[in-house]
Amino acid sequence: MKTIKDSVHDYIEVEGVALDLLDTAPLQRLRHISQLGTVTLVYPSANHTRFEHSLGVYHLANRALGHLGIEGQQAERVRAAALLHDVGHGPYSHNVEDLIYRHTGKYHDEVHDLIGEGEVAGILSEHGLNPDRVADLVAGDGELGQLVSGELDVDRMDYLVRDAHHTGVPYGTIDHGRLVRELRFVDGDLVLDEGNVQTAESLLLARALMNPVVYSHHVARIAKGMLRRGTERLLAETDVTPNELRRMDDKDLLVALRSHEATAGYGRRLSYRDLFKRAVWAEMEAVPEDLLAADHDEVRAFEEEIATASGVDPELVILDVPEEPEMKETSSRVIVAGEVRRLEEQSTLVQALRAAQYDQWRLGVYAPEDVSDRVGDAAVRVLGLDVEDTLVSDVRTGVHATLDEFQ
Amino acid sequence: MKTIKDSVHDYIEVEGVALDLLDTAPLQRLRHISQLGTVTLVYPSANHTRFEHSLGVYHLANRALGHLGIEGQQAERVRAAALLHDVGHGPYSHNVEDLIYRHTGKYHDEVHDLIGEGEVAGILSEHGLNPDRVADLVAGDGELGQLVSGELDVDRMDYLVRDAHHTGVPYGTIDHGRLVRELRFVDGDLVLDEGNVQTAESLLLARALMNPVVYSHHVARIAKGMLRRGTERLLAETDVTPNELRRMDDKDLLVALRSHEATAGYGRRLSYRDLFKRAVWAEMEAVPEDLLAADHDEVRAFEEEIATASGVDPELVILDVPEEPEMKETSSRVIVAGEVRRLEEQSTLVQALRAAQYDQWRLGVYAPEDVSDRVGDAAVRVLGLDVEDTLVSDVRTGVHATLDEFQ
Amino acid sequence: MKTIKDSVHDYIEVEGVALDLLDTAPLQRLRHISQLGTVTLVYPSANHTRFEHSLGVYHLANRALGHLGIEGQQAERVRAAALLHDVGHGPYSHNVEDLIYRHTGKYHDEVHDLIGEGEVAGILSEHGLNPDRVADLVAGDGELGQLVSGELDVDRMDYLVRDAHHTGVPYGTIDHGRLVRELRFVDGDLVLDEGNVQTAESLLLARALMNPVVYSHHVARIAKGMLRRGTERLLAETDVTPNELRRMDDKDLLVALRSHEATAGYGRRLSYRDLFKRAVWAEMEAVPEDLLAADHDEVRAFEEEIATASGVDPELVILDVPEEPEMKETSSRVIVAGEVRRLEEQSTLVQALRAAQYDQWRLGVYAPEDVSDRVGDAAVRVLGLDVEDTLVSDVRTGVHATLDEFQ
Amino acid sequence: MKTIKDSVHDYIEVEGVALDLLDTAPLQRLRHISQLGTVTLVYPSANHTRFEHSLGVYHLANRALGHLGIEGQQAERVRAAALLHDVGHGPYSHNVEDLIYRHTGKYHDEVHDLIGEGEVAGILSEHGLNPDRVADLVAGDGELGQLVSGELDVDRMDYLVRDAHHTGVPYGTIDHGRLVRELRFVDGDLVLDEGNVQTAESLLLARALMNPVVYSHHVARIAKGMLRRGTERLLAETDVTPNELRRMDDKDLLVALRSHEATAGYGRRLSYRDLFKRAVWAEMEAVPEDLLAADHDEVRAFEEEIATASGVDPELVILDVPEEPEMKETSSRVIVAGEVRRLEEQSTLVQALRAAQYDQWRLGVYAPEDVSDRVGDAAVRVLGLDVEDTLVSDVRTGVHATLDEFQ
Repeated sequence: MKTIKDSVHDYIEVEGVALDLLDTAPLQRLRHISQLGTVTLVYPSANHTRFEHSLGVYHLANRALGHLGIEGQQAERVRAAALLHDVGHGPYSHNVEDLIYRHTGKYHDEVHDLIGEGEVAGILSEHGLNPDRVADLVAGDGELGQLVSGELDVDRMDYLVRDAHHTGVPYGTIDHGRLVRELRFVDGDLVLDEGNVQTAESLLLARALMNPVVYSHHVARIAKGMLRRGTERLLAETDVTPNELRRMDDKDLLVALRSHEATAGYGRRLSYRDLFKRAVWAEMEAVPEDLLAADHDEVRAFEEEIATASGVDPELVILDVPEEPEMKETSSRVIVAGEVRRLEEQSTLVQALRAAQYDQWRLGVYAPEDVSDRVGDAAVRVLGLDVEDTLVSDVRTGVHATLDEFQ
Repeated sequence: MKTIKDSVHDYIEVEGVALDLLDTAPLQRLRHISQLGTVTLVYPSANHTRFEHSLGVYHLANRALGHLGIEGQQAERVRAAALLHDVGHGPYSHNVEDLIYRHTGKYHDEVHDLIGEGEVAGILSEHGLNPDRVADLVAGDGELGQLVSGELDVDRMDYLVRDAHHTGVPYGTIDHGRLVRELRFVDGDLVLDEGNVQTAESLLLARALMNPVVYSHHVARIAKGMLRRGTERLLAETDVTPNELRRMDDKDLLVALRSHEATAGYGRRLSYRDLFKRAVWAEMEAVPEDLLAADHDEVRAFEEEIATASGVDPELVILDVPEEPEMKETSSRVIVAGEVRRLEEQSTLVQALRAAQYDQWRLGVYAPEDVSDRVGDAAVRVLGLDVEDTLVSDVRTGVHATLDEFQ
Repeated sequence: MKTIKDSVHDYIEVEGVALDLLDTAPLQRLRHISQLGTVTLVYPSANHTRFEHSLGVYHLANRALGHLGIEGQQAERVRAAALLHDVGHGPYSHNVEDLIYRHTGKYHDEVHDLIGEGEVAGILSEHGLNPDRVADLVAGDGELGQLVSGELDVDRMDYLVRDAHHTGVPYGTIDHGRLVRELRFVDGDLVLDEGNVQTAESLLLARALMNPVVYSHHVARIAKGMLRRGTERLLAETDVTPNELRRMDDKDLLVALRSHEATAGYGRRLSYRDLFKRAVWAEMEAVPEDLLAADHDEVRAFEEEIATASGVDPELVILDVPEEPEMKETSSRVIVAGEVRRLEEQSTLVQALRAAQYDQWRLGVYAPEDVSDRVGDAAVRVLGLDVEDTLVSDVRTGVHATLDEFQ
Repeated sequence: MKTIKDSVHDYIEVEGVALDLLDTAPLQRLRHISQLGTVTLVYPSANHTRFEHSLGVYHLANRALGHLGIEGQQAERVRAAALLHDVGHGPYSHNVEDLIYRHTGKYHDEVHDLIGEGEVAGILSEHGLNPDRVADLVAGDGELGQLVSGELDVDRMDYLVRDAHHTGVPYGTIDHGRLVRELRFVDGDLVLDEGNVQTAESLLLARALMNPVVYSHHVARIAKGMLRRGTERLLAETDVTPNELRRMDDKDLLVALRSHEATAGYGRRLSYRDLFKRAVWAEMEAVPEDLLAADHDEVRAFEEEIATASGVDPELVILDVPEEPEMKETSSRVIVAGEVRRLEEQSTLVQALRAAQYDQWRLGVYAPEDVSDRVGDAAVRVLGLDVEDTLVSDVRTGVHATLDEFQ
């Protein structure tokens, strides 16, 4: 057994299959992949990695299994999946995940190929575990898969607390001790025991509050847009292949961006926080419906059209249309007065949170500061935005220059 | 200047009028009045007092004044009011406040008489402050009164964080540093600056989450019911007067309950946590409308009727009908896109929180464990409760015997 | 099983004999005995009680037993002793312990009479535990007694962290997680495993740093002196008996002091922090050797002599001669290169800490502010203090009026 | 003014020259230089960077200046120096500092060239500050230089607390709030005010405890040895120049190690934590005196001799001879009874800490696990170590395989 000191959970005991997996390259690689990607450009202390998060998820899975009374191979399989759940992440985690998916067809939780061969597969087999079944758990399949990836999974219990600890934003401080204690399986569903409507709500609320302030902060989104743009060029104009990209870590990607002439500008800007600004920042009401459903190629076409209309290099315009909000956790289940209910049935807060997610949604157009006025005006026209619900002018006139601005 | 170490705010600097007020008996008395009263019977570490809370409120007021650029006598008056804002509390703070009000006509924020004479009045005058105007601020009157008592007051910013620190329940962990920085005065109203809808929401959510888990936990409510009952008897059957009661501290009251024969049973039960149990625990839908509006005498009459119907001593039946929920904070104001809006207009969460408060509301009937079945049955009949929405049977069959039960 | 939320250890699981003991009066009484007594007059947030501390000690004992692989009745006995280890404390814990000992012959860890009869004895017997053997563990007797009371006991692991949490002074923040993991039994001795010289040193250092700043802060010592004086008068001039005193809690004692005419002055002064000041504050070098060894009666005689010499009422002079420092922890044992060594042999720090304790030692003479000059001058003469090493004049001239002064 | 959220100090307000410096490349580059280098291989959560530390040092400098009453250009110069104090660091901070010094003659605090030209120089000049005088402060020169680099500098106040926060090791948790409040200038010396002997001691103790457990943990030292060895080869066998190396960040260096054939093995081993083991671990008594004084070339010669004697590739043997311990803080000054004294005169602890540093000192010889026995035996002979005081056999037989082993 090894005991590892963690800034969030204090001591984490690692043993069994997890101990053998710990020193494999796929897991150690996560030391070089930041948990929150470009969010560190807003919150400078947020430099934690997927490695320590993976240890935390393993730890909480282990405690949940104990409280649930699950033992033996079944438990060992969950522990392996918990520790390995993030090995499929590319550089900067979610920041370039869509791009990797477009080129390789793999999201980060599709790890059958990654753990189905090599040293990880070997270790799993030595411990009598089938790599495919572990990969299934990582994808959230099966009853126990709910613990690893689901509405009440230990993944979010770790990341909310860890992100709060490292950003300094207190909203993520959920009561994970209570959550792992109160999990139960009822008819194959993972639920929270009697008396925990609040506990379930607090999990949702934590994410709802962290979202605009941390995960979707506009500065992080701008940098993410620039990172994606740079990475696309890297694939397009250098000999880096999508599969190489998928297995890079943060260090590889940033150095690659800096090293190639075609991407050096992005590399420099991202390294030294010389970022584009918001040319447009629009609420959902301002956005024509078909734009909301635009695919990657359509977005690229719009970017070029805006660039032409404003007379700037297309490389200097980024259109950022987030997906429609979804809140997986609203379907989490709790026991109320002896029967299992979906949280959304039980909690009036939950419908409200859904609506609040829509309120917080923003379309962004980003460009270098010296051309952002021109780009903003052109974008409003090209995209057919409703000027009333577009905050572009406010941004320009500095109305937003509050605490929120830097962060 | 004195510098006082505080477990929540680290160092608190006290100077000027506050320094002179610090050593007065009305303020030092708050050392003996617990912040959360009977909540310590649920959360054993929650033994913090109104004294340290008052220092915290003074500290946050001081910082808010700095950020708002308010100086001179005006600021000094607010600092005095912040430090003194709780001197009107009777023993066990809010727990017996209604009872004291019925007998003396004073709530805890009515302090004109308490600070209008004696050493406090003297010190205020020495510093050129009018005691009456300070008392006005304590009552929330006037523009600057909003800082001391209002939707965005520093009182709640301190107590949420402090109660979280001492109970161990993380939900109250708001970002008070941000809140005090973002306060502005616009046309006489205290508002939060641009970009702080979330900040305002987080304040509401913190209280909404702390409420059922901490402030209105059923065990704390049962003990509070017993404390009120005991205190009523103390007034009725001993020579303790309402005005003496109002100026007692927790120690005085508990020892008084223990010392008088008529109340010794309550004194012992409260001292050693030998509490009544829930005989009925009913949602609002289960409760006839007129019962919701019952006054103190009507509640007493119901208690006696239930006692008679179940054949137990009336002293052993407590009917606890909380007031209808209200959420003062929903009318707090934020600047959005340059104009002041009420939070309830801007935030879909806020309406939901209102509704959630109603969901959490519970009527309780409490009695000693050995008679709680009989009392529960009788109460359902006497009060005309709708059995479907009454959780009495669940309580009895132990369905609630989860984590929540002890706490 | 009950799960109790604690602000230090998060969730504490209570089961078995501990669960039955929890609701007994001797244990619940500890809710009304503060952990640090008069220290709250220096650190206003330090209002934690012996009750929550007892739960914490039980929790750490439980974890230590798990790591040590001790199970069954033996473990259950240690858990009972851990939970009960402080039931022998009188009001204000250590503050009046000497006084109670002089009158009853009992220190707080002598609990054979307290748990040998009544409900506690009954519960222990029901669980097959011999009350006398549990009381032996509380006194630190036997191999397992070292866990409850010894150089490496879980008692100090809890109180250091808890006192740091509540005072806000960070020095007590030891790594208790590591300490309980690294305990081993070797030949009947409780020791720390290989690689933990530092861990053992940190425990000593924590206490050495907390001592002058928290436990022996001069303001706490002054108030303690006043509390003892008041309590002595209570025994001398009222019908309160020593055995009644021993079973009082803080509330009882403070109200008793306030209620009796002979002690009302002390009651008021202690309630409202109207304290004596230091008239003398002398290093050990300044103190004649026989004074260091003076017993209670001799100290009383000196007080009267000083009072006479300065022309003040003897009630207004308190002479405070602390015992010579001792550091039990220096004999704690660690494994180094495979063999058990005493920490003091292994660690150069330890001898230094001993010496440092002597450096920090101070004799104090306390009196009301308006007579403290006169009393100080008289005390220097009467006690034969070496003026060079006496800080009396510095105190008077306000040289010490720094951060330290209030606290 | 910008307000930046920090996980240690909560909100940091940046204005004036600091605000303009914030967005320069030399400062932003620190985002890519980890604070603790290879220590993250022991404590996975320790991924904080020199950037956030620099903000923290700026913040504490700012507060110290406020408490000291220093204003105007003088203060602005200190603020600039505090923010810039680490721009001279090469990749992995102190880990390859000696190597860079050997090749460039620059330590990290020699920044005259770095801030004397380019955008930083320009910004300083715009604010009326002389870059050379700012660089002097960074080097600790002049009265105010003591605040930036000296026995009581704000640098160590930040890093102790920050390293504790991120590693999870509590020992660094000093009371920085008190330290910055109690600083005074007396006759040009920065000292702590009356009543702070303990405060000064706590600063030393914190570092003394953090040192073996964090900063000089053997695993971090092994990885550091490998990093230096790899980096030397990078300079020797590729076209990377010393000046390029000095300006690299962590990402550049690790990717460079991985990319060049001559260093790819080190790159891989460091990336995936496939580290050498201790072949020898010897106390100072075991080491011949001339070896303690060996320079870089002599150490290289020993390594080759050990390699030859054990029949392994010289690349696989690392000899790690730390410098003799020094404790700068022991000469920090405190006011005692009105006069300035050096802490080492006043505190018996301080001499002990010096000695303790010698106790903790270890010489290490590292090699891959499969040859570490052979290498260890050869090293004992070649270096003439006293076998009695060499822990080599213990390490091999696993006596140290405790908690300490992984960490």
